[in-house]
Amino acid sequence: MRKVGKQEIEDIAVGAALLGTGGGGDPHIGKLMALQAIEEFGPVTVLDTDEVPDDALVVPSSMMGAPTVMLEKIPSGEEAILAFNQLEKYLGEKVYATFPIEAGGVNSMLPFALAARLGMPVIDVDGMGRAFPELQMVTFYLDGISATPAVIADEKGNTSLLSTIDNVWTERIARAATIQMGGSVMNAMYSMRGKNLKESGITNILQLEEQIGKTIREAKENNVNAIEKVLETVGGFELFQGKVTDIDRKTESGFARGIATFEGTNDYKDETLELRFQNEHLLAQTKNKLLCVTPDLIAVLDAETGLPITTEGIRYGSRCVVIGIPCHPKWRTEKGIATVGPAYFGYDVDYTPVEELVNEGGRK
Amino acid sequence: MRKVGKQEIEDIAVGAALLGTGGGGDPHIGKLMALQAIEEFGPVTVLDTDEVPDDALVVPSSMMGAPTVMLEKIPSGEEAILAFNQLEKYLGEKVYATFPIEAGGVNSMLPFALAARLGMPVIDVDGMGRAFPELQMVTFYLDGISATPAVIADEKGNTSLLSTIDNVWTERIARAATIQMGGSVMNAMYSMRGKNLKESGITNILQLEEQIGKTIREAKENNVNAIEKVLETVGGFELFQGKVTDIDRKTESGFARGIATFEGTNDYKDETLELRFQNEHLLAQTKNKLLCVTPDLIAVLDAETGLPITTEGIRYGSRCVVIGIPCHPKWRTEKGIATVGPAYFGYDVDYTPVEELVNEGGRK
Repeated sequence: MRKVGKQEIEDIAVGAALLGTGGGGDPHIGKLMALQAIEEFGPVTVLDTDEVPDDALVVPSSMMGAPTVMLEKIPSGEEAILAFNQLEKYLGEKVYATFPIEAGGVNSMLPFALAARLGMPVIDVDGMGRAFPELQMVTFYLDGISATPAVIADEKGNTSLLSTIDNVWTERIARAATIQMGGSVMNAMYSMRGKNLKESGITNILQLEEQIGKTIREAKENNVNAIEKVLETVGGFELFQGKVTDIDRKTESGFARGIATFEGTNDYKDETLELRFQNEHLLAQTKNKLLCVTPDLIAVLDAETGLPITTEGIRYGSRCVVIGIPCHPKWRTEKGIATVGPAYFGYDVDYTPVEELVNEGGRK
Repeated sequence: MRKVGKQEIEDIAVGAALLGTGGGGDPHIGKLMALQAIEEFGPVTVLDTDEVPDDALVVPSSMMGAPTVMLEKIPSGEEAILAFNQLEKYLGEKVYATFPIEAGGVNSMLPFALAARLGMPVIDVDGMGRAFPELQMVTFYLDGISATPAVIADEKGNTSLLSTIDNVWTERIARAATIQMGGSVMNAMYSMRGKNLKESGITNILQLEEQIGKTIREAKENNVNAIEKVLETVGGFELFQGKVTDIDRKTESGFARGIATFEGTNDYKDETLELRFQNEHLLAQTKNKLLCVTPDLIAVLDAETGLPITTEGIRYGSRCVVIGIPCHPKWRTEKGIATVGPAYFGYDVDYTPVEELVNEGGRK
């Protein structure tokens, strides 16, 4: 058990945005929401998973929708409380603690904003160890945990409580409702017991995020190269250095989809990187070489500061370093690859672990 | 209190389809569903509204979606029970009786199918006295009764329980979910107390529907003109006689929308009628004359049998008589016209009661 205050929030927000692989929301907005709640209600208690009773009712707090929409519609905090209240009413039971569903600038911060308001602890765990665009893309789904009863709530006060035959149906119906409800909503779904969370979640993710954020902050303070330090911290690989020359981005079917093109700099001169995303960065390739593909993590970092750049933050002319990080082993199983691998997103490549692509020079 | 068996169901189905003004579903399917349930579980008790206790919880049973979809996806009856069960669980109270939300071949029959299965009475009342395409288009909305908590359920077993800030939001969110859930769903919404129903509903609608159906049936048996008799029964007007020469129909945004064109026959030779619909027939006009417009009722009848034809049943070459019927006075109020008048559907005409259009020869 530990207390998380403002400095920890700043660091976690940066680390979460990096593991969010371009998605999971704008870290500036997420940070502001969490900081404001902590300012008003005091520090939040963080529990390790082994401190959570096996029979405790635990529910992640998250948002769904296009990050491009979230930029213009900042949640007040009331939406999340409304979603939790509806779920508690339906289950007839109080929630013991919350936690992030995924890593991301907003989605890692929302549980802190909610927990501060409700005087509830946050658990150091999430359901991805990164970010993914669809509701069924969580380790809980791989382990057969139902997303429903699932509540979504908008800032106007509308809620929808879904009970579905599987989590892919939760995604379909909730996504359609989200678009009507203004493009982004707050979720209370994947309620489970402490025991399930311990078995199925990605543990100690907040500690890792805090460590990443701290590494980047201290590198700046000490005037050393942040990116090298980050790669050490996360066990990742540099994939490319370049300058954004084209960015094709649209909001469709409730997602921010697109392609960013980078022209190589330094060691990568005369090469071109194509980065494909759907809320998150999902595939990085040069003209004849696959560099990294989902479920492995692709993060775009500012070449100077090492700070992560979200898909909606990618700007023409930005100088970036693109890195790859091996995903959690749960995603490398057969069901994991079927759920979040390249084929699911329509990419005609086989999944190959990033460390193999890097070490073997990739597939020509 | 009276019992409704097979003959009454046959007559009500026909009368309801006529008042359904082309929408409310295919009377053949609705009838089969009700007859099958009555066959299996016995006749259904029908109550007049004044037989319902003021504090009884009453909930209409209905379907939403495009009638064109309903043709291919006949409900088993389990969807309606699932929707009611979810609503009862949420409210923590048993439903006392059900009733139709609108007149229509399917939507007037569904309450009988459900009531037979659940051993529950049906109340002789609905919320329109006709059919309309959207959820907020009920007299209950005019009287400030909330559509939510509202449950929609599909045949796969998915449900969504909505709580919205107003009934227009219920419509928006439920419609989007309906499209994802296969294009049609069963509803349990507009739960209310007996007292509210007595004040806000259109009473004795089932009796009127049964009378219409009986009139058409007996006209056939006695070999007399059914349409004249129907016009007497409903207090309506003949608008046009003609033959379908064009039908432009598409399913979009979850509705069956389109325009049917009729070439005049008999007294209407050399005239052309244009009939616009969105699930229901909403506007009838010749080249220079408005004949009838929503919320007044427009029904298309088979010229020979007098049987009503739904929007999806209109076929090239069919000989029809188009009739107009004054709507219930609740729809002619300011809020009524704002909710279901021509402007709401995008027609650039003022509402004029059908009896004025007929008596004054319409607007040139």
